[in-house]
Amino acid sequence: MTPYELIRAKRDGSALPPEALRNFVAAYGRGEIPDYQMAALCMAVWFRGLDPVELRTWTEAMLRSGGMLRGAPGSPPRIDKHSTGGVGDKVSLCLAPLVAACGVAVPMVAGRGLGHTGGTVDKLAAIPGFRTDLTLAEADRIVAELGVCIFGQTDEIAPADRRLYALRDVTATVDSIPLIAASILSKKLAENLEGLVLDVKVGSGAFMRRREEAEQLARTLVDLAWALGCRTVAWLTSMDAPLGAAVGNASELLEAVDVLRGKGPPDVRALTLRLGAEMLLLGRAARTLDEAERRLSRAIDDGSGLERFRALVAAQGGDPGVLDSPARLLGKLERTEVRAPRPGHLVAMDTLAVGLAEVRLGAGRTRSDDSIDRGVGFTVHLHPGETVAQGEPIFTVQHRPGQDVREVCQRLAAAVRISDTAEPVPPLFIARLEALRP
Amino acid sequence: MTPYELIRAKRDGSALPPEALRNFVAAYGRGEIPDYQMAALCMAVWFRGLDPVELRTWTEAMLRSGGMLRGAPGSPPRIDKHSTGGVGDKVSLCLAPLVAACGVAVPMVAGRGLGHTGGTVDKLAAIPGFRTDLTLAEADRIVAELGVCIFGQTDEIAPADRRLYALRDVTATVDSIPLIAASILSKKLAENLEGLVLDVKVGSGAFMRRREEAEQLARTLVDLAWALGCRTVAWLTSMDAPLGAAVGNASELLEAVDVLRGKGPPDVRALTLRLGAEMLLLGRAARTLDEAERRLSRAIDDGSGLERFRALVAAQGGDPGVLDSPARLLGKLERTEVRAPRPGHLVAMDTLAVGLAEVRLGAGRTRSDDSIDRGVGFTVHLHPGETVAQGEPIFTVQHRPGQDVREVCQRLAAAVRISDTAEPVPPLFIARLEALRP
Repeated sequence: MTPYELIRAKRDGSALPPEALRNFVAAYGRGEIPDYQMAALCMAVWFRGLDPVELRTWTEAMLRSGGMLRGAPGSPPRIDKHSTGGVGDKVSLCLAPLVAACGVAVPMVAGRGLGHTGGTVDKLAAIPGFRTDLTLAEADRIVAELGVCIFGQTDEIAPADRRLYALRDVTATVDSIPLIAASILSKKLAENLEGLVLDVKVGSGAFMRRREEAEQLARTLVDLAWALGCRTVAWLTSMDAPLGAAVGNASELLEAVDVLRGKGPPDVRALTLRLGAEMLLLGRAARTLDEAERRLSRAIDDGSGLERFRALVAAQGGDPGVLDSPARLLGKLERTEVRAPRPGHLVAMDTLAVGLAEVRLGAGRTRSDDSIDRGVGFTVHLHPGETVAQGEPIFTVQHRPGQDVREVCQRLAAAVRISDTAEPVPPLFIARLEALRP
Repeated sequence: MTPYELIRAKRDGSALPPEALRNFVAAYGRGEIPDYQMAALCMAVWFRGLDPVELRTWTEAMLRSGGMLRGAPGSPPRIDKHSTGGVGDKVSLCLAPLVAACGVAVPMVAGRGLGHTGGTVDKLAAIPGFRTDLTLAEADRIVAELGVCIFGQTDEIAPADRRLYALRDVTATVDSIPLIAASILSKKLAENLEGLVLDVKVGSGAFMRRREEAEQLARTLVDLAWALGCRTVAWLTSMDAPLGAAVGNASELLEAVDVLRGKGPPDVRALTLRLGAEMLLLGRAARTLDEAERRLSRAIDDGSGLERFRALVAAQGGDPGVLDSPARLLGKLERTEVRAPRPGHLVAMDTLAVGLAEVRLGAGRTRSDDSIDRGVGFTVHLHPGETVAQGEPIFTVQHRPGQDVREVCQRLAAAVRISDTAEPVPPLFIARLEALRP
């Protein structure tokens, strides 16, 4: 089957032979299929989807376009977490060392921020000297030593996905559930995992704003991961408000450290414990969710989670001392408040708008080559469901001295809806999905 | 609107703003939009179509990517014919000079053969020295002098279409009715026409095998041409059998000359007269179809059509003398018969298979850079609807001495269905369409 015939078959809704599809994706990864043929195929996939066999073949071919972590016989089980992205989501930073402190290895390939959502790699990069561009060999060594590492996608990891993501980004083929699922798992499975916990965000600040879409993505991911031999659980969680109080790279890092110190906002802590407990269960380090959450809480209380995070920072070239000196991380900042125009119930927060205000402030990117300021950000003082007094600060913007933040403040003010009557707020934990297959 | 936003809007089924679409197509023609973005857009168009305003904008932008013939004030009306392509269709060759002999100018941009269908330009190129690569200035001069010229698409004519066609050919986006219509008319309207007659083929040897599809293409073409200021009539005609007896470049040229001599197969003559009559009506050179057909018949009988064709050949660099010496055109050939395996009624001929056998013989191309043998071909002795005796020749294959034509003969034999009972055969003329607008 020629590339042309393969594109036409997908366009016409025919099932693609696995061998032909595997060859197409592999050849694309080697630069032997031109971008225009892959662009046409991706658009046809946007309309027609991929059936489970096609999706598995596609994902495996992308995974095999690069290398994998090795792991070692007799070492702890390897479990990771992936979030589909949101505003203020710093959970990976506290979760990975905490789970590692409980005896489960977390070899985490994390993403960079793009659009309105932040990226774990950018938050870590706020630490002077911290290297997020580990080789597979370096990552293997650090995981063997510490049970945890956090690094970004390099040319070693699923290069076909890397090339494809850049192409989808300019051809309006990003928001296809099978292509999203293949992209996520081709990177995550390069970690040589035994289990994976997915945090699929739903709501105004998520890529999937509607529950049905999020559930479809979660279902696709869980089934695909299982088909590829990775035990997987997904949680649908609310992204109808920023997670926690801190929004911004360094400030989110500091908030994650707060959680490891037994402080920090309750929603960040609750999500960390729930997702971590699922990881311990998958890693057979606990028998029930309750038992697992208790183990994680102990690793907070006895400081072993924080200690593991400090060791991680040191192993990846950073100075753990900065975690105790916020000023070194943030730089010189001024503060501007965004206050409530009237009293009432804060019933909704347009979280996409908050994320876009973050980009406008300089903390995020609209293009993958934009540079960012890792010190600026917001504090979110009030969340939907709370009451608010007139003139009470809803956000504090932390910005550079003299920086014009009028538009940022206007965007933040417009993102908030205050009403005379309370309205129900979606719960943080919406639903849990496992694979249909045992 | 960015290219990305335009692709996304089409993908999502939104109407494209004319200005944005015009800029996109024009920028593509200048090489400023990469092929991968155009490929994604074409695939989205394959699924979503183009509305009439989008289609008009797209076609105009492709037309304006190149130059146009000028015509001259006070010169005869300029009318052309376009066929969607079939097997054995040599009508353009006799039609253009015949219509010109009746006082209507025919500045014809014709196509090359690709796949199972032949091309007018290839048939003319069988004449030694004949130039099909006229500049616009040369074509203008020849039309002013003779009222007719026939040449191929060059870089001067709709270069955006030329680039786009090559892209569609490798991204499975050729068979989209709006993209086909835009491609045809962006070239034809570069002739600065007042009227256009379309011959939309239907049947086993046509691109549109089903009548509904052919009718949809004809309707799209007629309405688009009218919207662009060109009066247009379309005929749906049968391509369930090769047209006439000759299949092959030089042999089709000779058969067209036969028609101009008052001989030749009745179907080729009938189609030439009908389409020519529509051209005379559009060119106000006759008031009724009957009157127009009589004028055309006279131009055959008095030799003025043939004389105009000889003048055209000479004006474009060829030697008209070869039209009287078939051997000079064909070269040394041997003949192999394909005979009926049993007596009965010839009820159907898979005309696509006949066209593909022609390609196999060496007379056609599968890729645009394939070289072809303009002398080889077939004679089709019997057509669907006729009775056949056992052992009677159905095809004669004219091939090079020693050429292995076993596979060609097998394909031809397999293309014919002989039955004990007669079956109805579709008429040559199926339907006539005019624009909905006056």
